[in-house]
Amino acid sequence: MSDNVKINRGLKGIYFERSGVSDIDGAKGELSYRGYSIHDLATHSTFEEVCYLLIHGDLPTADQLAAFDTALKAARVLPAPVLDIIRATKDGHPMDVLRTAVSALAALEPDSQQVGEEAFVANGIRLISQVPIIIAAHDAIRNGREVVAPDMDLSHAGNWLWMLKGEKPTPEATRLADVDFILHAEHGANASSFAARVTIGTETNLHGGIVTALSTLAGPAHGGAAEDVMKMVHEIGTPDKAAAYVKAKRAAKEAVTGFGHRVYRKEDPRARHMREGVRQLGEEMGAPEWYEILQAVVDAMQPYARHGLNVNVDFYSGVIYQLHGIAMDLYVPIFAIGRMPGWIIQCIEQQRGNILIRPLTLYNGPEPRAYTPLNAR
Amino acid sequence: MSDNVKINRGLKGIYFERSGVSDIDGAKGELSYRGYSIHDLATHSTFEEVCYLLIHGDLPTADQLAAFDTALKAARVLPAPVLDIIRATKDGHPMDVLRTAVSALAALEPDSQQVGEEAFVANGIRLISQVPIIIAAHDAIRNGREVVAPDMDLSHAGNWLWMLKGEKPTPEATRLADVDFILHAEHGANASSFAARVTIGTETNLHGGIVTALSTLAGPAHGGAAEDVMKMVHEIGTPDKAAAYVKAKRAAKEAVTGFGHRVYRKEDPRARHMREGVRQLGEEMGAPEWYEILQAVVDAMQPYARHGLNVNVDFYSGVIYQLHGIAMDLYVPIFAIGRMPGWIIQCIEQQRGNILIRPLTLYNGPEPRAYTPLNAR
Repeated sequence: MSDNVKINRGLKGIYFERSGVSDIDGAKGELSYRGYSIHDLATHSTFEEVCYLLIHGDLPTADQLAAFDTALKAARVLPAPVLDIIRATKDGHPMDVLRTAVSALAALEPDSQQVGEEAFVANGIRLISQVPIIIAAHDAIRNGREVVAPDMDLSHAGNWLWMLKGEKPTPEATRLADVDFILHAEHGANASSFAARVTIGTETNLHGGIVTALSTLAGPAHGGAAEDVMKMVHEIGTPDKAAAYVKAKRAAKEAVTGFGHRVYRKEDPRARHMREGVRQLGEEMGAPEWYEILQAVVDAMQPYARHGLNVNVDFYSGVIYQLHGIAMDLYVPIFAIGRMPGWIIQCIEQQRGNILIRPLTLYNGPEPRAYTPLNAR
Repeated sequence: MSDNVKINRGLKGIYFERSGVSDIDGAKGELSYRGYSIHDLATHSTFEEVCYLLIHGDLPTADQLAAFDTALKAARVLPAPVLDIIRATKDGHPMDVLRTAVSALAALEPDSQQVGEEAFVANGIRLISQVPIIIAAHDAIRNGREVVAPDMDLSHAGNWLWMLKGEKPTPEATRLADVDFILHAEHGANASSFAARVTIGTETNLHGGIVTALSTLAGPAHGGAAEDVMKMVHEIGTPDKAAAYVKAKRAAKEAVTGFGHRVYRKEDPRARHMREGVRQLGEEMGAPEWYEILQAVVDAMQPYARHGLNVNVDFYSGVIYQLHGIAMDLYVPIFAIGRMPGWIIQCIEQQRGNILIRPLTLYNGPEPRAYTPLNAR
């Protein structure tokens, strides 16, 4: 039997479901949410609007957006025991602390036990607001600072920067964070969204799906790219050393981080928005060298690019965080803030007409054998 | 394009990997771990031995088993902050509390951040011991009792009953719990093990995989069967009412819980061991009616069984827990205690020659559309 069975390692190329949320054309390098090009959304929209679009399917009217925004702001609060739990785990990796806090919310907020579309939307809105607050509160606590109270006059992105840094962010910084969240909001059946769907396939609640997504995003092969690029930039040090770095990597047949993607064959369409943001921010802050190092890496990669240079979204985002003075271990949690609406709508889609996701492994272990008692071994 | 694409809903029948751990023959109703029949293991082995077998691939010698047992016993301890976290979340569902505590262990125990086979084995052994202790500690705390200190003279199953109930278990009760754990220890690419493999596919640590597994097991379509059967038994009330109950369910085209399985076409091979345990325990405890209700349901189901009656493992286990005076919301956590070695070895297998597990969804959402500004909607 085993000779006739096809093993689909990594489930590469296997379709497991239809989805009406995002369309990725890897060959053309195109991405859209609900029919809207990522370029239009990154240029004209806000994260709040994109959350509404992803979850409800269409762009909101002014009234719909106002109501949605009010619901998001009302959820800018954490039960006191969650802050105690953050204190108890404060020396852990921020992704572990975030996941522990979200898991605890399931135990602390009885509404989280509800299943079904309406409950998933309500609990999803709450979690969209709570996740950045958990991250900011943890960063304050581990650095011996007071947890900053939310500012209801600020947007989702602005409030996150305010709570993280304890000072009011500039409009430019807020916009850059907003665009970062928009670009990370949804990306099909990526590993974290897919894992969340497997969890929801057992008919459990949304918090269960989000906890699974957070566990999965934490892996270096998924959410860790921005951090890896930043480490590379530090290793290179100055723009003039980029060419030698790339040459040595290629000679050793090692990958240069921040290039390539499982799905895209051209440049990741999200990358260009971050590139321009990095350039501007570096100039404003009098620190253009980070951008210059990145561009020197891109230039040095040209000879090795057979099908055009496919820089991915996280090639640039690490430098933005660095310029904002954000600790490197917060890069993955920031990805999580952005991906929340994508995870939520994927969980909602999964529980509509749900089916248990249960593939097979082909057994290649020992043949049947007789049990021998311990004293005969 | 969309017309030519095959959608594999639920990934039914799709092989994504080879595995040398358990062999399930659904058509014949057979299950083996590493070549050993589940019947031999349930009759002759212990949970400690089965853990060793699953993780290391062969039955241990006496010395190997002694060393493994010593390592398991050394891990019967929780960091103090975990007990604080259990207290902070004590009113939540035990699965949420367990998952939160395991997630917190990742933040509290630096070793948990290590990846690779050796680290997964070491961290796996620690988690096998910590999971039942978390469950027992939570049950004590929520009932206003002192957390019971572990007893190093007791086996894994015996110590769990001791810490849960605060009294020394009989050898019969210990053996029944031991067999329950053996029967639940491993079952191929079930949803929780598969989800854990997706998480590990991103190169994250073992704790991440186990947190995902716990999230996924919590769903009623996966770990909830024993609880559902017990609710049915209570609803039926007495054996003479079973036939009418089954008839009404079938007339309404509703499933009778505890029958059928995604993989098995004959009786689940694990069920027979629990059946005999339930019968004996009920007699010993002077409460034979539970077993009688279950058998009356089986008898009433006969006319509806086209291919033989395929009772599944959890048809009987709920009654065992009930006879032990264990709260119904602990049935899924007990499943988790048993499944720990299976999850761990699946995570270990995944990280050997790892590949990102990332299937595809076929887009069926809106066609490309132009962005309209908010004031024009």
